[in-house]
Amino acid sequence: MTAARAGDDSATGGRLPFAATPSDVRGRGFSSRASLPVMEGWIDAAVTPLPPRAVALADLAATLAEGVVLAAPLTAPGDWPPADRAARDGVAVASSDTLGAGSYNPVPLPDAVTVAAGEPMPPGADAILPVECIQTDGPFVEALDSAAPGEGVERQGEGLRGGTVLRVAGHRLRPQDLGLLAALGIDTVRVGARPWVRVVLAGGPRSGPETLGAMLTALVARDGGVVELVGPLPADRTVLAAAYAAPGADLLISAGRTGVGDDDVAPLALADAGGLALHGVALRPGDSAALGTAGGAPAVLLPGEPMACLTAYELLAGRAVRRLAGRDPALPHPAVPAVTVRKLVSEIGCTELHRVRRTADGLVEPVASPHRPGLAGAVLADGFVLIPADSEGVPAGATVTLRCFDGTSL
Amino acid sequence: MTAARAGDDSATGGRLPFAATPSDVRGRGFSSRASLPVMEGWIDAAVTPLPPRAVALADLAATLAEGVVLAAPLTAPGDWPPADRAARDGVAVASSDTLGAGSYNPVPLPDAVTVAAGEPMPPGADAILPVECIQTDGPFVEALDSAAPGEGVERQGEGLRGGTVLRVAGHRLRPQDLGLLAALGIDTVRVGARPWVRVVLAGGPRSGPETLGAMLTALVARDGGVVELVGPLPADRTVLAAAYAAPGADLLISAGRTGVGDDDVAPLALADAGGLALHGVALRPGDSAALGTAGGAPAVLLPGEPMACLTAYELLAGRAVRRLAGRDPALPHPAVPAVTVRKLVSEIGCTELHRVRRTADGLVEPVASPHRPGLAGAVLADGFVLIPADSEGVPAGATVTLRCFDGTSL
Repeated sequence: MTAARAGDDSATGGRLPFAATPSDVRGRGFSSRASLPVMEGWIDAAVTPLPPRAVALADLAATLAEGVVLAAPLTAPGDWPPADRAARDGVAVASSDTLGAGSYNPVPLPDAVTVAAGEPMPPGADAILPVECIQTDGPFVEALDSAAPGEGVERQGEGLRGGTVLRVAGHRLRPQDLGLLAALGIDTVRVGARPWVRVVLAGGPRSGPETLGAMLTALVARDGGVVELVGPLPADRTVLAAAYAAPGADLLISAGRTGVGDDDVAPLALADAGGLALHGVALRPGDSAALGTAGGAPAVLLPGEPMACLTAYELLAGRAVRRLAGRDPALPHPAVPAVTVRKLVSEIGCTELHRVRRTADGLVEPVASPHRPGLAGAVLADGFVLIPADSEGVPAGATVTLRCFDGTSL
Repeated sequence: MTAARAGDDSATGGRLPFAATPSDVRGRGFSSRASLPVMEGWIDAAVTPLPPRAVALADLAATLAEGVVLAAPLTAPGDWPPADRAARDGVAVASSDTLGAGSYNPVPLPDAVTVAAGEPMPPGADAILPVECIQTDGPFVEALDSAAPGEGVERQGEGLRGGTVLRVAGHRLRPQDLGLLAALGIDTVRVGARPWVRVVLAGGPRSGPETLGAMLTALVARDGGVVELVGPLPADRTVLAAAYAAPGADLLISAGRTGVGDDDVAPLALADAGGLALHGVALRPGDSAALGTAGGAPAVLLPGEPMACLTAYELLAGRAVRRLAGRDPALPHPAVPAVTVRKLVSEIGCTELHRVRRTADGLVEPVASPHRPGLAGAVLADGFVLIPADSEGVPAGATVTLRCFDGTSL
């Protein structure tokens, strides 16, 4: 197979090719493919984050593990605690009343008041003695230890000064963040939108797009979207165009029928439904992906071969979902440095995704070449290494960036 | 305050103290506290994983990001692909028919058949030429390049041999795992149970347990459970005992009223509702936590002070939830090595949790001492460092294990 050539668009900017309609590649093959940075640039220009939503803490809690990001910085509205209070259960005392107290020298406490952790300090008290340091004898309360001023007391603003920026916009909320918000009396929070993503399964051979619904639903949910699954539909230009153009979606993703066969009518249907902007990307797997618009929304066409579909989702469609959801558009996979066991060979001019697994001694080894179809390699893999278009690969023993399939960004 | 003493139970096994009922600590303080390993051992003995559930892929997909784990190993039911097939769109040929073909030497192909990627190989064909290497002239099809035997063909079993163990039990499912299951024709999968967890908010001072519902719901959901939130209830022994003993829950978690104040009736209510096994743990924060049973289910009482509640959830209650859900009971926070900026001082005999953040140069520095209450420190922190009971801390420049608040285990 001849080398996929990068498109003639600059990777670093310049006019985006919105207006040029790619030609029909069926039966002829791609005359050129856009570089991955050009495709990313098109997405960034075409996809605008949706307005954030205000959600009650109680409603956020059950779905927090799916990933919810702050839409605005989280700032302390005032000092916390708002006044001095007991930091522990015990007896509130004036520390000067306890001078010299010890287990062999009990000191009477005329003004002792029992308090629970979190309760305000009674007037005149400046310390809390734990109950173990107190003995009671009928109505008399005695200290068995001395207390320093401020001991056992949580001072106003000690935990948090009003105006402190706790977390910036884009922060992924954690359980304790909800706990602090509740303690501060904040019961709703502005978080990233949940884009409505139509996923059209555009038909294809066995194990192709008709089986991709669950995977794509999980991917979109991971990136903050909600899926409307349509299909599988037949490889019919008119049927697909109608499904693409139907209103209501923030983003259209279609899987299958993007290649060079006679039945590969998805790009033509997208042209009918709105516009086909770029078809073909210098990315392996995933090189028949396309970008455009449908019914006024941005659209990404993914190849139907499952591994090509996964790759093009991660590098193109996922970026669009994450942008709509107000998230960092970069890959969400935790990036860690790793050393290769064997060389990874890559074609100049094409970004290649190598599925790799960790070995027992902490290195990474390839599981499947970018040319190998099917998801088995991605299931056996712990993550992937991207070799950029300007590299012909890396030797054994090289340090690369492993993108972990498991987990979220740290 | 006097040092919390570890209990006299061995940390490494021995008879679990199920039978001994701890005494009422109100107004007196704890005479001893169990070590963290003793508490963990009690949980492991008392909490049995629930039976796995069989779930349809389509139903798993939308909630996969919350974390779903395999209940049994995932094994390939047969070779994949099950027979030789086209690895790409193109024209299926007998490679011997293409010998010597080139762009200046087109070779006629009498038996060429157009195929799409994933379609079976036609009889007699052993290679796929891409469409770029073909020219058609009316009814005649000519090769513009030669094909080697097997080129462009995906062989039976090339992706996956039948019987291969793809992932072991306990593996957290990823989107591509659903894709492969669908491609293999597997439409339901056995995954870890979703335990029903009753969370009772047992009253307390402002910013105490009555504000902890959202945080605890998010924590339980992260660990695979579903929350039934009850309260806030008053600090009334009879009311709490009735809520604890009500049937239907796989696990009871209660927050608040575990300390040494007069109103700290949660341990007494647990004794009434089933049994109080251990009260007090050599853990800071969180030292007033308790374990027992309620209405036949295991029960964990958490302190109401929010940071103590978070700590005792992570180290005790979360372990019970994860065990019920068929997950690894260990902490779910990604563990990474890190170097301390400053020393971390810890009390011998007590496991201490230090909230830390990463500095710009990749080190970690403490945000809040284990003595400081409130969640502000945990919100400003990126993770935590646990100092075990047998250590008095670590000096500046020491390598410690950072447990990240963000992310899931890799």
